[in-house]
Amino acid sequence: MYHKGFASDNNAGVHPAVMQALSGVNKGHAVGYGEDTITASAIELFKEVLGDSVEVFFVYNGTGANVLALQALTQSYNAVICSDVAHIHVDECGAPEKLSGCKLLTVHSPNGKLTVDLIKQHMHGFGFEHHAQPKVISITQATELGTVYSIEEIKTIAEFAHENGLYLHMDGARLANAAASLQCSLKELTFDAGVDVLSFGGTKNGLMFGEAVVFANRQLAENVKYVRKQSAQLHSKMRFIAAQFKALLSNGLWLDNARQANQMAILLADRLKAIPQVEVTQKVDSNGIFAIVPEWLIEPLQKSFFFYVWDESRDEVRWMTSFDTVPEDIDAFIERIKEIIAQNK
Amino acid sequence: MYHKGFASDNNAGVHPAVMQALSGVNKGHAVGYGEDTITASAIELFKEVLGDSVEVFFVYNGTGANVLALQALTQSYNAVICSDVAHIHVDECGAPEKLSGCKLLTVHSPNGKLTVDLIKQHMHGFGFEHHAQPKVISITQATELGTVYSIEEIKTIAEFAHENGLYLHMDGARLANAAASLQCSLKELTFDAGVDVLSFGGTKNGLMFGEAVVFANRQLAENVKYVRKQSAQLHSKMRFIAAQFKALLSNGLWLDNARQANQMAILLADRLKAIPQVEVTQKVDSNGIFAIVPEWLIEPLQKSFFFYVWDESRDEVRWMTSFDTVPEDIDAFIERIKEIIAQNK
Amino acid sequence: MYHKGFASDNNAGVHPAVMQALSGVNKGHAVGYGEDTITASAIELFKEVLGDSVEVFFVYNGTGANVLALQALTQSYNAVICSDVAHIHVDECGAPEKLSGCKLLTVHSPNGKLTVDLIKQHMHGFGFEHHAQPKVISITQATELGTVYSIEEIKTIAEFAHENGLYLHMDGARLANAAASLQCSLKELTFDAGVDVLSFGGTKNGLMFGEAVVFANRQLAENVKYVRKQSAQLHSKMRFIAAQFKALLSNGLWLDNARQANQMAILLADRLKAIPQVEVTQKVDSNGIFAIVPEWLIEPLQKSFFFYVWDESRDEVRWMTSFDTVPEDIDAFIERIKEIIAQNK
Amino acid sequence: MYHKGFASDNNAGVHPAVMQALSGVNKGHAVGYGEDTITASAIELFKEVLGDSVEVFFVYNGTGANVLALQALTQSYNAVICSDVAHIHVDECGAPEKLSGCKLLTVHSPNGKLTVDLIKQHMHGFGFEHHAQPKVISITQATELGTVYSIEEIKTIAEFAHENGLYLHMDGARLANAAASLQCSLKELTFDAGVDVLSFGGTKNGLMFGEAVVFANRQLAENVKYVRKQSAQLHSKMRFIAAQFKALLSNGLWLDNARQANQMAILLADRLKAIPQVEVTQKVDSNGIFAIVPEWLIEPLQKSFFFYVWDESRDEVRWMTSFDTVPEDIDAFIERIKEIIAQNK
Repeated sequence: MYHKGFASDNNAGVHPAVMQALSGVNKGHAVGYGEDTITASAIELFKEVLGDSVEVFFVYNGTGANVLALQALTQSYNAVICSDVAHIHVDECGAPEKLSGCKLLTVHSPNGKLTVDLIKQHMHGFGFEHHAQPKVISITQATELGTVYSIEEIKTIAEFAHENGLYLHMDGARLANAAASLQCSLKELTFDAGVDVLSFGGTKNGLMFGEAVVFANRQLAENVKYVRKQSAQLHSKMRFIAAQFKALLSNGLWLDNARQANQMAILLADRLKAIPQVEVTQKVDSNGIFAIVPEWLIEPLQKSFFFYVWDESRDEVRWMTSFDTVPEDIDAFIERIKEIIAQNK
Repeated sequence: MYHKGFASDNNAGVHPAVMQALSGVNKGHAVGYGEDTITASAIELFKEVLGDSVEVFFVYNGTGANVLALQALTQSYNAVICSDVAHIHVDECGAPEKLSGCKLLTVHSPNGKLTVDLIKQHMHGFGFEHHAQPKVISITQATELGTVYSIEEIKTIAEFAHENGLYLHMDGARLANAAASLQCSLKELTFDAGVDVLSFGGTKNGLMFGEAVVFANRQLAENVKYVRKQSAQLHSKMRFIAAQFKALLSNGLWLDNARQANQMAILLADRLKAIPQVEVTQKVDSNGIFAIVPEWLIEPLQKSFFFYVWDESRDEVRWMTSFDTVPEDIDAFIERIKEIIAQNK
Repeated sequence: MYHKGFASDNNAGVHPAVMQALSGVNKGHAVGYGEDTITASAIELFKEVLGDSVEVFFVYNGTGANVLALQALTQSYNAVICSDVAHIHVDECGAPEKLSGCKLLTVHSPNGKLTVDLIKQHMHGFGFEHHAQPKVISITQATELGTVYSIEEIKTIAEFAHENGLYLHMDGARLANAAASLQCSLKELTFDAGVDVLSFGGTKNGLMFGEAVVFANRQLAENVKYVRKQSAQLHSKMRFIAAQFKALLSNGLWLDNARQANQMAILLADRLKAIPQVEVTQKVDSNGIFAIVPEWLIEPLQKSFFFYVWDESRDEVRWMTSFDTVPEDIDAFIERIKEIIAQNK
Repeated sequence: MYHKGFASDNNAGVHPAVMQALSGVNKGHAVGYGEDTITASAIELFKEVLGDSVEVFFVYNGTGANVLALQALTQSYNAVICSDVAHIHVDECGAPEKLSGCKLLTVHSPNGKLTVDLIKQHMHGFGFEHHAQPKVISITQATELGTVYSIEEIKTIAEFAHENGLYLHMDGARLANAAASLQCSLKELTFDAGVDVLSFGGTKNGLMFGEAVVFANRQLAENVKYVRKQSAQLHSKMRFIAAQFKALLSNGLWLDNARQANQMAILLADRLKAIPQVEVTQKVDSNGIFAIVPEWLIEPLQKSFFFYVWDESRDEVRWMTSFDTVPEDIDAFIERIKEIIAQNK
């Protein structure tokens, strides 16, 4: 098998600068659980990037980030409105329901994006005790289908949420890719647009482990430290998460990594245009490509480059690029596709 | 402040061999979520060390390990019997109750150890639906008070558990220290002695992050993968946990690290004998020392070497040594104690 | 306001025979929590009606019955497939998620009924730990929209469920109405057709309080008594639930009550045909009528006869008949509708 | 077996006045779920008895009342401090942990009563995220051991709770017996003394089913209606709970019933003095008697009058009197005890 695949951006390794940062903080002792100076300076950096009023909590992984965010904003009788392809609905084995007790109300969204119109179908039953009370709208940026919300789209949803007494959660496992795509700052794309709580992804953008849950302000975050601990998401040797985020947020590494992944996706999409047997099904806004391919292409191609079938019913596959994907990887991939097609003619 | 403290073995950094292992596996792509070859070989190593029939699940931290183990063995109407100083009862912010729904039934154990006699007070109400049904006995090895169960003591509890239809869980956050203390193998101390599920600690013995939940056999572990995912304890870039454990279990690193920590605790205890103002309160079996000290000693000493007060009501403090503690650290610490005492005369 | 409304069959009172049964057992003491002879004989009666192998657990209400049934068949990482109008999804404030931890996977079903084809959209991801594992299909009989599954339709779903390792749960809050509609026995409609666990409704068919959860066999029910107690659904003075069910299942009272309600719904539907402003939207299989009406009709009619608006977006209302509805009630209701229409011309 | 036993006050039936009230409200339709006039007037009556500012929620049973009260006052990372014989700890199969997620911190209390001194052992770790945060002190009045807190004792605990930011919950399953014992009003004994939320018992004092959860004020009760529904404790035909409470709170029925039970307990205790083989172990403050008896007495006596062994390890039994116990029952019971003793001489 080729040494890089297109299965997921979490199949990539750790960016060298991040690895160096890990070594760099491995000196002497540090107080555990985030009471150390490295964690303090990482949080400072987050405030520089996302705004002075934000509150930051490091956790282990994306599911951990999402369930922490949702628990912080809800009671168990609440409901969370999300897309039917949302990671919190499809890919977390029911963690949100188990940890928060809440119901997830899904909306069919063919491009992975929510709109106020789509959300409205669940905006009823307020004050009616038989009905789980909607309290959070959760959007994913970039979406699970590789599309990206514009800042205006986010603002519109945020305003609608707040007018109706709901919070806006953003699952930003690939937030950096969205920001790179829109050429805007992380702040403009999140808290300036009205996001209340953000799952800020690190692992898919070059970290070894670690995500951050960022709250818009202190009020929202008041008791989050207990929720994090009770959810088994508090790391003892916290400096080793903090140091990675410091590396990511310094010198624009987050942007370089995301941009590289996005550009490789665009390159791949571009090269696919010349292959009529492959039909790209979603707009390529970030680092994911969805395509319907001939069934006979899938297995031999997977043997060379591992990837997942997204929708078996129509032979739709997902190809993700990473911060470490280079044009040569795309070349090799396209070459192999062409080979298999040639063999099947 | 001195560059090393005695607060906790998780205030230490990462052992250099572990850090090297992390760099070593940072090449190319690897399938995520544990489907990679590095994880496979780490699991193989676990089987060599703990027995062929064991099943291994890597998680993020100690609380994650314990709640995974307990959820795997219980239904929500069950109860878990443990010591009143057990980490699962005192230091996990109610995570076991929240995740498993179970009741914790505690036993007052002045030295941190359970005995069959102590356990028996909770062995009633079986079949009576008003009563949470005891299903797991949970012991900590080494205990939270630094003491160590002998193999015989564990066997006795395991036999009692099994005769009564209960499982034996071992919280082995400091299992290596116990094995070093008893000069026995990890297998003799766990599955050979009747343990059903083990939280195998890594972080406190020199890892950056990562613990392993090890089940005695496949039957017990049947659906654990779903529980791990739903509990937000499944790491995507799994090779980076696996590589650390490979380093720890290879070339006896786990034993060297534990032995060093233990020897430093013994050295510290030995040196304390010459200081009549300090009364060691627990047997020093592993790497923790508990001592009652003059109240005026605590604050100035903490300013030089950070540590926790264990029981404020009687000025009992806890001092932990680590794999990286060296005799010079003990010297400096003892020196500082003597200085403060001299100043208070 | 008229002394009877069409809001819900639970707005009716208690059938006189049930009230008499309650008085009848109010003599002396009885062992609590179901260990009494009246409960034993009520369970015997259930076995006569539903089959010798069934296991019966009395609970307080419909939500209690459903969450007990679902908890008994699932682990928290499972999913339950149901209609998007299912009571467990829409009307229980998230109780199933909270109590079981499971995800509910909904299917859009315009007539309230599931089919194998509809269910299939959720039959994937088995063995994939990221995905909540489907374990139960839950159908409502009669449905929340007043329609009724045929025995064949249930058998088809049950076979599909069992072939795929899933259980079939039936929410039978209005099971009696369905049986009356189909002119079949309760057994033919449930366990003979492959149902694994049944929420057997009592309150909507003339009881004061109390429902029964009936399992197809002992294996399924093994630990249910603990789940019932932990879910706060175990009544101490159990004879008072048991006596009501004895009355309901004796002398065909369940059938008389259900038949009366159904016949009144048919009568009402029939009378509505003469009113062109009212469009009945669902097949009238049991005791519920759904109709789109002029918006100006709703409020004045509610002032005379209380009822609920089902779908505000299209002025669809729900009218339920009860065991105590009589033709005179229908007359008065139709009369009032005509009056309001006349006033609005 | 004798037609009345001494197993529990919930082995008694329904008081005739309560049964009459049930029949009395069984007329026509009433809006469901508590929106009816009977429920409104029952709540009004509660306000008269317990204070204008209270908020009342009817539920099904004692466990339902307690878990509603605790959920209303806590987040899942909180802890509840209670006696080690508390019903919420010993007799609810872990319902509080499952529903609230909270940890129960128990105190060994030989007479069933908490004191500030006993509570203090758990008053630490505030603000420390590793520690479940104490938020509620829960006391039972009358206690599970038949003893009764004085008003002063409750005030002292309430003040301590409030000074420390905790709430005081009272499990009043037998509150009426306590008030009868102390000859004070229900209000003096609860909200005047500082109770924040009360589980007000009905079933053990002559109701068929139904308890009330009463909050000191609206702020505490803000979202309780959702919690009640999600906990499967909302009755549809609510008028039938409300009517019972109206009967209980009218004309002093609650007091007559409780007084009768208490007096019979005192009578029984008095008669037992003449039997040297029976040693009463607790103060007889309400309607329960605890006694150590010869082992050979237990089984034959249970055959005549059913009751529970409280502590098998020392042959301690519990005998409860009820609102319907009369002196002749005591006579028969004492007679039988004497007979068995005579046979064993």
